[in-house]
Parts: sequence; C-alpha cells; structure tokens
Amino acid sequence: MKKVSALRPSKRERKKLQTPNPEARQRLMDAASDIIRAGGYNALRIEAVAERAGLSVGTFYLYFEGKADLFVEIVIDYTERLLDRLQEAYHTEGTVPERMTRGLDAYLDFVEENELGFIHFVQDASVLETTAGRLSDWAFQEHAEALRPLLEEGISSGEMRPQNPMLAAQALVGMTQHICVFWLQHHKEYTRQQIRSFLIGFPAAGLTPQAPRASARSR
Amino acid sequence: MKKVSALRPSKRERKKLQTPNPEARQRLMDAASDIIRAGGYNALRIEAVAERAGLSVGTFYLYFEGKADLFVEIVIDYTERLLDRLQEAYHTEGTVPERMTRGLDAYLDFVEENELGFIHFVQDASVLETTAGRLSDWAFQEHAEALRPLLEEGISSGEMRPQNPMLAAQALVGMTQHICVFWLQHHKEYTRQQIRSFLIGFPAAGLTPQAPRASARSR
Repeated sequence: MKKVSALRPSKRERKKLQTPNPEARQRLMDAASDIIRAGGYNALRIEAVAERAGLSVGTFYLYFEGKADLFVEIVIDYTERLLDRLQEAYHTEGTVPERMTRGLDAYLDFVEENELGFIHFVQDASVLETTAGRLSDWAFQEHAEALRPLLEEGISSGEMRPQNPMLAAQALVGMTQHICVFWLQHHKEYTRQQIRSFLIGFPAAGLTPQAPRASARSR
Repeated sequence: MKKVSALRPSKRERKKLQTPNPEARQRLMDAASDIIRAGGYNALRIEAVAERAGLSVGTFYLYFEGKADLFVEIVIDYTERLLDRLQEAYHTEGTVPERMTRGLDAYLDFVEENELGFIHFVQDASVLETTAGRLSDWAFQEHAEALRPLLEEGISSGEMRPQNPMLAAQALVGMTQHICVFWLQHHKEYTRQQIRSFLIGFPAAGLTPQAPRASARSR
C-alpha cells in the first residue's frame, strides 16, 4: 500500500513525544470518528474531540497537527481496514465472479456499519489534500489496485470479457461507491438485497439484453 | 429542474440592488470560474475575483453573499448548461443506445473544455451544502433524472435489459464522472477515443463474455 499522510501546511515543528501512548492516540481517533459519523468534517472541533476522549487539547496536539491531519489519519485507517477485508474476500476459493461478490458483501457490511459516516468519509475526503493528492483519489486508487488482479485473472481465464482492467477496476469502484452513497441517502426506498442484486447484475451484464444462448437453442 | 441555491448561514440581510446589472454579475462569475479552473475552491479569494472583474469588493457583495454562494452559483450554472446539451443529445433521432452515445460525446466535450476545472467543480461540490443537500448530490440527481426516461424507453422497447432505471441511471452517471476525473488525472495515458470506447462498451456489455449469438449459429 502506498504510504500517504496529510499535507502539513504548518512550518512549525510539532513537539515530539519521547514515548507516545498508542492508547491515547486511539482514544482521540475514536472520539473524532464518532463526531464525524454524526456531523462530518465540518462538525469536527478539536476541543470536542479532546473532551470526548477525556484528554486535554494540549495532549491532542502531541498526537495530531490539527483537524485536517486527524481526519486524514482516520480515513486512511478506515480505508486500510476495509481493504484488508476486501483482499481477504478476493483471495478466497471459487470463480472470479464469486470472489468479486464476496468482496461486494464485505463492502456492503462496511457501509452498513458506518451508515452516514460512510457518506461523510467519502464526500469530505474529496477535498483534503495529502502527500498523494486528494485523499479520495488515493482511496480510489488503492481500491482499484486491489481489484485489478482479480479482473486480470478473470480476463485471462475467459471468465470475463477482454477489456482494459484498470479502467474496469476504476469504473467498478466509482460506481459501487456512488450507488452506496445514493442508497444511504434513500435508505427507506431500497433494501440491501436490492442494492446487492443491482451491483452484481449491472456490472456483469450491462444494459444490453442478453442474446438467447446458443447452447440453450442447441439442446 | 429543481430550484437550488447556496445555504446562507449569514443572518444579515444583504443589501438589495434596485437595478442589478446582469453584466457585472456575469463578469464576477467569469473571473471566479477562471480562478477555480486553475486552483479550485481553495484558491478563490473575493479580492482577486473583484480585481479580475475590474470591480470593487463592495460591488461583489451586492451580487453574492460570499465565496460559498459564488461557487455554488457557478457550479449550478455550469451544470445547467451541461444538462441542456445532454438533453439536446438525448432528444435526437435514433435508437436509445445511439442517443446515449451522443450524450456521452457532449459530456466528453464538456470535460475537455474545462479540463482540470472539471475536477475542481466535481470534487469541491461534494462538500458544499445547498438548500437541496450537498451540491454534488443535487448535480448527480439532475443528471440521473435527465437520463432515466431514456433508459425507461430502452427497457420498454426491448433495446435494454429490464432493471431498475433509477439505479441504472445513477450507476451510469457515477461511473462516467469518476472515469472522466480519472482520465483528466492520467491524461497522457489514455486518449479520448479509448475513454469513449470504454464508456460505451462497459455499460453496454459489462464484464461477462458474450455468449455466441443463437442467430449466428442458426444461420
């Protein structure tokens, strides 16, 4: 995975901790995640994060540069955990379409666990600059890179139609994320089962009606 | 089209002009568009907009509440102009797939005209709140609503596979926008022709290899 971090516009050198406490850092990230889930990046206030974590604002600044740094670290953390689950699904046994469907199930689990937090992470990530460009571009690239080998395998085994695997991976990742945001915004109108069926059927078969299978005719 | 405008957090009543000058307003919007194209929303400074338009900062505030208001108005303006071109393409003669391809060509023209400005409009729009939710959600909804009747027509004529037309419209819009952002970020790696072919072929046929056509066998 490509190393990425928040852009640090401040020239001021942050006070370095001799013995940073990973538990304190995690408490700050968990507190911030709760706030982002409810109200997005705009609702994030450092005072509120510190208070919720039971730490001082001074301690906060020992671990993070500020709001943007904290948000970027959280999105990176979530993305990496999601990618681990996707990679696990992609590396199970079975056909390429079966493994892609297991990846989709892991993705939908993640969306349901985070609900509106998923929308905040996705939409706010599109304006935050990191050392690897916009945070959302980094996340899309990581997702597409994880999916691409599976598409290449499917194309070379004949399970999938030959096409540019990078564009296909990007198209699948962009479409899946977009439909999940749409789903969360219209939660009462579609069940998970409807969204799942659509996200399996549409990329598989596209818009064109299926030609009657030659094999069905010849039987 | 749904009426939409920037959220106005300021309670202060803006000074109303007795005889607003549409030409001054347009000059401010054009100046701001140039700045956004080069550097995005973050680069937008009201002083710079006024200077570029040859007007005073005081005059600026007679026409716009501030930065967010101005940006939202510009994105709405661009989106409406793009939607007009898409609607024109969708209402030409021909099969549904032919008309969709003409819409895609109009979309790709727009992307090429605006280049990096397209990325800025798209990504910054995802964090700006309007009276109809996030600006990007409004734009997606308008695009999907414009496309949906065409999909419904294709499904009912048998030119397209039966499926949920709203989800299919959202999937097409989300995927097309995402691939165009990806294209602009990797401009040297893909030609317009490659992107166009992909954006016709992938939604049409999906991932699955085509079954040999029964008609081809029976001939």
